[in-house]
This record gives sequence, structure tokens and C-alpha cells, in this order.
Amino acid sequence: MMRSTAILCFLTCGFCWTQAASDSQPASSNVMGAEYPRVYSDNRVTFQLRAPDAQKVQVQVTGAKYDMTKGENGIWSVTTPPLIPGFHYYSLVVDGIAVNDPGSHTFFGTGKDSSGIEVPESGVDYYSYKDVPHGDVRIRPYLSKTTGKWRRCFVYTPPDYDTNTGARYPVLYLQHGMGEDETGWIFQGRANLILDNLIAAKRSVPMIIVTDNGYASKPGAPAQQGSGVPGRGAGGGISAFEEVITRDLIPMIDSTFRTLADRDHRAMAGLSMGGNQTCQVTMRNLDKFSYIGAFSGTMNGLSTEPLDPATAFNGMFKDGAALSKRIKLFWIGMGTAEPNPFPGAIGAFRAMLDKAGVPYVYFESPGTAHEWLTWRRDLNDFAPRLFR
Amino acid sequence: MMRSTAILCFLTCGFCWTQAASDSQPASSNVMGAEYPRVYSDNRVTFQLRAPDAQKVQVQVTGAKYDMTKGENGIWSVTTPPLIPGFHYYSLVVDGIAVNDPGSHTFFGTGKDSSGIEVPESGVDYYSYKDVPHGDVRIRPYLSKTTGKWRRCFVYTPPDYDTNTGARYPVLYLQHGMGEDETGWIFQGRANLILDNLIAAKRSVPMIIVTDNGYASKPGAPAQQGSGVPGRGAGGGISAFEEVITRDLIPMIDSTFRTLADRDHRAMAGLSMGGNQTCQVTMRNLDKFSYIGAFSGTMNGLSTEPLDPATAFNGMFKDGAALSKRIKLFWIGMGTAEPNPFPGAIGAFRAMLDKAGVPYVYFESPGTAHEWLTWRRDLNDFAPRLFR
Repeated sequence: MMRSTAILCFLTCGFCWTQAASDSQPASSNVMGAEYPRVYSDNRVTFQLRAPDAQKVQVQVTGAKYDMTKGENGIWSVTTPPLIPGFHYYSLVVDGIAVNDPGSHTFFGTGKDSSGIEVPESGVDYYSYKDVPHGDVRIRPYLSKTTGKWRRCFVYTPPDYDTNTGARYPVLYLQHGMGEDETGWIFQGRANLILDNLIAAKRSVPMIIVTDNGYASKPGAPAQQGSGVPGRGAGGGISAFEEVITRDLIPMIDSTFRTLADRDHRAMAGLSMGGNQTCQVTMRNLDKFSYIGAFSGTMNGLSTEPLDPATAFNGMFKDGAALSKRIKLFWIGMGTAEPNPFPGAIGAFRAMLDKAGVPYVYFESPGTAHEWLTWRRDLNDFAPRLFR
Repeated sequence: MMRSTAILCFLTCGFCWTQAASDSQPASSNVMGAEYPRVYSDNRVTFQLRAPDAQKVQVQVTGAKYDMTKGENGIWSVTTPPLIPGFHYYSLVVDGIAVNDPGSHTFFGTGKDSSGIEVPESGVDYYSYKDVPHGDVRIRPYLSKTTGKWRRCFVYTPPDYDTNTGARYPVLYLQHGMGEDETGWIFQGRANLILDNLIAAKRSVPMIIVTDNGYASKPGAPAQQGSGVPGRGAGGGISAFEEVITRDLIPMIDSTFRTLADRDHRAMAGLSMGGNQTCQVTMRNLDKFSYIGAFSGTMNGLSTEPLDPATAFNGMFKDGAALSKRIKLFWIGMGTAEPNPFPGAIGAFRAMLDKAGVPYVYFESPGTAHEWLTWRRDLNDFAPRLFR
């Protein structure tokens, strides 16, 4: 976009950021040219906003609110204490209204396109761009018979997909959390980079990853319906998601890509709400899936009530011996800093599996909360265990 | 993301929008579940924002500002007169600060991730999702030797690319405007849908489209440098773009995809700043390109000064007869409602081509300004003329 008025504004305002300190650099999640937010080497972060007429400006990040101070030219600023590494959604709160930071790119989460900041993790590069072969992330629309609407999924094809044209690949279906969508695992989670790096290190077999929108309702369902544009306004409900993935998505993927189209070569994992959906979908469709990943979310959702395997979920888990023959991997992960009710809910689910004798892998991410760094670590541990 | 506090907020606020009028529907550019903005059948639009503590709220769209009125529960609202069809960036202005609308998805433009609204165009479906074969849009990272950084391009592969594995394809390099990036032609411009529909109607030959980030600076160049994340903070300058496209991007595309890698099968087009870049890059590299598209932007940029072909641009255009043998198509387009300086600048460039005897196609988009509907129409006219 370039209007004559916009040009002037853009040239005079857009690229003229205040001179910044040298022990810091613009966050990698910033838009081009934006000097703020800036991250210091000790992970303190300086946020800025030009808001000459505002009475009060705060930044809300990692569960805390920091008051910003008004300086020259109406620029508000604050430097936070060191932030936990990883990706955090954040807002600027201007006179009580949470708004996006124009310096930050947006990431779909908390039900909107939200500002987000990447705080570097020292010495860690498994989710970084490295000079290894890269797969493509393909944006793919499909018409869902279940919802009657166009939907959109993202499909990661591994680096050799286009050259090794005789090969067929196993598939991991990987789901986002509440208020997120099919973009989350790529832009926040960096699933493609994690797999590029794992495959280059020969720690994972090459696989296709499909990220779909976990929200799906049938026509006329009570949840508010949005538009017919894929991934945009797909509706607030999740009642039709199981039908979408089993009847629409999997057949479309298997007919469009060179997949190994059987349960031995099909995995599903998800985070939070997506972990709950993963348990529901896989356990009801064990003819289709043999690998299950529950990242910070299990079949009991947010309930911390004890579960009796004989009766919970219609006794689906009661025969541990039989399940252990059908499920090649049941993997559960959680961050050690996750707030209630997650430790309790996940703990109750694990206790039920223990009682029933269903084997599973349990992984803890040290020091991380209900956030994307937990789930990047989850994927980095989970993916190497698949399709062996 | 799902924190315990966020869950409650999301469930209680996120999906509870005020009951809306029946002659209207949520804009297709809204986030899931968002009932506002709503578009009426006559293209009036109602915008809403909950801002109990704000003193004044306006919406800024299509060059005008509309005052919003405070109603119950601190919800501000306004219904605009009918808006011009197509895609418009917009802002809500809260107590003087331009912010995003949480009900809208964001689109990278005007130097930030901005709210945008799609106003339907009655009876027009060339950029809609239709039940035709769809190509993929691939998000592809590459390491630029020129800038020393990772960059990101989007690559549209036509519907038969994966099945017609012996085929090679011509390539259109398609550039965005000022303050936009490689995402613009897909999410705002819908280039993939336009080509899907043109190819299905056999009006265009199947082709690959590459959209890159037009901003590129060499290490140490004076423009502010952003991050090393592709497409994110690639730097505010454009001085190295020609080197990036000719030395980094084209070789990467030709070695990664099944292209027809010669000038007869390579086109470049761009809008506004991208049209200027297209003229510069193609005219200096006629060994690499034979099709040129200048959408609302020409080689003289924003200057309306008359141009003498004998001297302008080092006399590059003076020999019309020779150029007409090398250039298979020089295509220029503009909207009839574009503001100054575009009509004057594009007019001056056309007058120079006329004087020099350089043949070109001139296309006018009726009633549209310096906005994306002009450029969708441009692509819909331009693409069928390529590679014939």
C-alpha cells in the first residue's frame, strides 16, 4: 500500500525510532525496521510506544503488568526484569485498552492476532534457522464436506520431498491450543525448523506434518459462524473437528501428498486444547493412529478430579495390556512452571494410565509455563520417537 | 495459548459479541467468531470496539475518519457509508492512537501488521475460493549471500505441479509495495486464488509465482537492520534487492523447483514501489526477463516530471524498435481513482514510452484507488498474457 498521504507518514514516522542501547537488539519477532521492543543480553526487554495523548500505558507480558513512563515526544517506555526465554504473547495497555504493539509482528493467539516477542534462549539452536536443508511449509485450502466451508491447513513437507519422488512419508497431525489456529505451530512453534534440524541431524525420520484449524462446526451449529475464508472465522466451536480430521482432512492429505496411509505411519499430537482433541480423536480412531502426543493437555481437559480407569471415558483405558499392543507411543509433556489446573489435570490423567497399566513417556520442560517454549521442547523430544 | 486466567477471559469476552443485524454479515477478514466488523449488502460497514475508558474512538478507512459513538457496556460503534469494494487497511483511533481492531485479522502493510477489511464485490469471483484444483503456496526460507541473512519467499506452485512431475514451469516474480512484504500478494492480493481460477478456466498457462520481500540491504548498510528471521526485520532499505533477486533468489528457485530457467519463461511484476523495482530490475537484466508488469508504479517513481527517452534513465528506453524485439510484454496498469502523484507519474512514463515507440499494454481499473483491488484486477489481466 502506498498512498500519497501514507507515504509521507510512513517515511517520517515509520523508520525513525529512537536511538537504542548497544547491549540490546531488536527482537527477532519485530517488524522490519522496528528498533523496539529490544532484548538485552540478560533478557531484560525494553518496550516503547509513542502515545502523546495517553494517560497511562503498561505492557502486559508473561503474566505481569509493567507501568511505562512517558518521556520526550510522547514516547512511553519501560525495561522489564529478565524475561523467561521463548515466545510470549503480549499487549500494550493504553488507558485500559489492550492493544497491539506496532513494532511487533502479530501471531494468532488468545483469539486475535496478538503481538508476540521472542526472547532468545542462550546456547539453544534446535528451533533456529540453520544452514541445513529446509522443507517447505505449504498453505493448502480444502473444501470440508463436514462444515460445508473452505478450510485451510499448513503442510510441512520434508527437505527431500521434491527430489526423492519415489518416497512416501509418514504423517504427524499437529494441533494448536485454544484461541489459536493452524498457523501457530509454524509461526510460534517453529515446527518446520525443529524438524529441519532433527532430520538434518538424523534424529528424526523425514515426515510430513499437517497443522489444521481445531475449530470446526457443522452448518447451523450454535457456535458463531465466521466467514467462508479458510482459517478465517471458521467458527468458535470444536464439535465437528473429529469428523473434519477423519473424513475430510486425512483423505485429502493422503490423496494429495505421497503419504504412507496407514495407522503405523500416522501420528497425532496437540497442545492444551489440541492435546485434549488429540486424545479424543486418536483413542476413538485407533484404526487410524498409533502414535499419540499430549502436550500440556490430556483427555480430561481442565478437570483435576481423580479418574478411575474402569469407568472414566467409558472404560476406554481400562485394558492397559490390550492398549499397549495397539498404541506404539503415548507421550505426555508439561512445563514445570505451568499454572493450575494443568499440573493437577495432567497428573490425574497420568495416575489413571498408571493404574490401568497403559505405558507412556512423560517429559518435563524445566522452568517453562503454559507457553510455546514448552511445546517446542515437547516436539523436539516427541518427533524423534515417531515411526521407528 | 491457554493460561488459566486467559481461559476465563477468552470464554467470557472473546466470543460474546453483541447481537447483530440480519442484513449484514461478519467480514471475511475477521478472526474466528468475531461478529464485527459487519458488512451490509450495500457495503456499509459497522465497526465496534469495547473501550469503556476511552474519551474518543474513530475508525480510519479508505482515507476517511468516522467518529464512533459510545453505547452500553462501553462499546463504541459506527456504521460507515457504503465502502468501495475490495481490501482496505484500516485502524481504530482510540484517544488519538491508531490501533488494530481485535476483531480483524492483520495483514502486513503500512509498515506494520495492520487490520484489514474485505468488502465484497458483487458478482465477481475471480479471487474467491472456488471448487477448482488449487495450487500450494509454499513458505520457503533461503540464506542470502548478498545480505548475509535468512530471508523468506512465498512460492505458488500450480495445481498440477505435484502430479505432472515431468513438467517444467515458467516463473512470475511478483512484488509488493512500500511498507508491505512477501505475504501481501497472497493474503491481501489473493494471487494464488486468481491463478487457480485462471488456470482452471484455461485462461492462463500453469506457472510458478514467487513473492519475495522487496527490502534488502547489505551488511552494514545505513538502513536500520532488523533480525535474522526471514521476512521479519529484513531491514528498511531496498538498495540490495536487485542483487538479491538476480544472484540469490532466481538461482535458488531454479535449483529448487522445476522451472523453465530462461528469459522467455521468466516474468516480473510489482505494485507501486514493487512496480518501480520491477522496471529497474528487468530493464537492467533483459538477459533474464522478457515480460514486465508495472502495477501503479513505474521507473520514475513518484516524479511527474516529463521524461525525454534520449536521456532519461541513461537512454535505456530510447531505441523503441530494439526494445520491442527483446520485451515480449510491457504492461502498465492503474486505478482510475488513484491519487496524485500516481496518475502524473505513470502518465509521464507512458508518454516517454510513446515518444520512444516502445509498445506496451495499458490497463485501467475503474473506480479503484491505490489499493489491492486495483492490483488483483491487474494480475487478472496480466497473467493470461504471459508465456504464450
